[in-house]
Amino acid sequence: MTRRIAYLGPQGTYTEEAAAQYAPDAQLVPYPTVKQAAAAVEAGEADEAVAPIENSLYGSIVDILDFLIAAKRTVIRGEVLLPINHCLMAAPSTKLEDVRFVLAHGQAIGQCGEYLAKHLSQAQLIAASSNAAAAQDVRGRIDAVAIGPKRAAGLYGLKVVAEGIQDSRTNITRFVVLAQTDHGRTGKDRTSFCFDVKDMPGALYQCLRPIAERRINLTKIESRPTGDRLGRYIFLVDVEGHRTDPAVAAALEALRGMTVMLKVLGSYPQASVPGRA
Amino acid sequence: MTRRIAYLGPQGTYTEEAAAQYAPDAQLVPYPTVKQAAAAVEAGEADEAVAPIENSLYGSIVDILDFLIAAKRTVIRGEVLLPINHCLMAAPSTKLEDVRFVLAHGQAIGQCGEYLAKHLSQAQLIAASSNAAAAQDVRGRIDAVAIGPKRAAGLYGLKVVAEGIQDSRTNITRFVVLAQTDHGRTGKDRTSFCFDVKDMPGALYQCLRPIAERRINLTKIESRPTGDRLGRYIFLVDVEGHRTDPAVAAALEALRGMTVMLKVLGSYPQASVPGRA
Repeated sequence: MTRRIAYLGPQGTYTEEAAAQYAPDAQLVPYPTVKQAAAAVEAGEADEAVAPIENSLYGSIVDILDFLIAAKRTVIRGEVLLPINHCLMAAPSTKLEDVRFVLAHGQAIGQCGEYLAKHLSQAQLIAASSNAAAAQDVRGRIDAVAIGPKRAAGLYGLKVVAEGIQDSRTNITRFVVLAQTDHGRTGKDRTSFCFDVKDMPGALYQCLRPIAERRINLTKIESRPTGDRLGRYIFLVDVEGHRTDPAVAAALEALRGMTVMLKVLGSYPQASVPGRA
Repeated sequence: MTRRIAYLGPQGTYTEEAAAQYAPDAQLVPYPTVKQAAAAVEAGEADEAVAPIENSLYGSIVDILDFLIAAKRTVIRGEVLLPINHCLMAAPSTKLEDVRFVLAHGQAIGQCGEYLAKHLSQAQLIAASSNAAAAQDVRGRIDAVAIGPKRAAGLYGLKVVAEGIQDSRTNITRFVVLAQTDHGRTGKDRTSFCFDVKDMPGALYQCLRPIAERRINLTKIESRPTGDRLGRYIFLVDVEGHRTDPAVAAALEALRGMTVMLKVLGSYPQASVPGRA
């Protein structure tokens, strides 16, 4: 049976591109929010879900983290790294000198500031709900261009006027794959977990000791206030290694004794950027 | 002369509400992106800028952080905490039983999932570029409602059908105020700084020692990969205290010797949530 993969829609976005890169043969099903895509996994309606988690264009890690902390079954099973390659696209008959409007998601507009200032300084910049929505909007227009993934140009019959127009060449978005089970050990893995500590000087420093003294590499840390309990914080941490590796297992065990809440969000293979060593 | 305050527009968003709360008598000027609002401060066109930085509805801390690291003059001078109070709003003649569409920013839709499932399960959820754009769109319609701040209802002549419809009662967004100088010591301050470390196990742990051993309270930490230099990380840290407090000054001095780059992003008074002790 074909795998069903939920993703943060609409079609023609970078998230769909990441989902297609992760599972080229799967059936991709768009959902309007990260929460709904994740809930489809929790309910067993979808086998997996793909959602942006860092440097994200369409949402925030907050949604996924909230969901994972409360989830009964859903964990992180994989990650996808996708270089963001913004294209300028327009209806086939559009001439650049006639363009008066640039439509794109606000983050895409922000990421292409230098190009837009140089080539389209006369045009008005209009924030759309998604890059795909922007591409759809410029289909029948000769006065407007859109910014977005090449996939959106193909989907809406637009020509690609320019490629790679983002200011930074190294704009990579990280997506996570959610499922009801995490991934087995591969030898080059990552483990995500979260814990909360009391609001006291040095608490985080103490909690990092079990990780540091086992020379486990920490690849991400993020704190966020817990809404309900003022003065408490949740930390989200990624480390290199699988939760069944002896060092990681021992560090998590030690940490469990130091924290009020510790939840392992999943172990999964480390992704590499396509086209790079 | 009236102070000019740049904010992440459009009008009728929570960011405008935060800017108005911060400076009720100032002239508020909307900008399409965080970067452009911040650049207005750097260029001296605006005195200050207000932009969301945590739990944000309209962007990501990434934009501001990138800007602040590269900025020659702009620093953080203040913070604003604003409880998010989502309202359901509609044209005056709209009846709830006729509503077939709910328009709002994707994050607002996600944050009101329980209410929408209970009261508007038949309606289609449509992501708008901002809550303000959604409010503007439903003005002339009897088949659609929008979600957003009360301010948007007033701005576009809508009636408020329901208030506080978000799932969580404690949804607070944090905004920062940018300016060319940070704030003097008040005795209840916060200091933001960032630094990068080499990718080696324990590096962050070592860097937190100067903070922990002076019993300085850490209120936020966030890591992000630096695009250009793979295997390097930038950490963004907030601590309690002013950069001129002896303990904070000594910790920063010690940290400077341990890091490749350390930049103090500003000291400013700690904000409290309006209506709370």
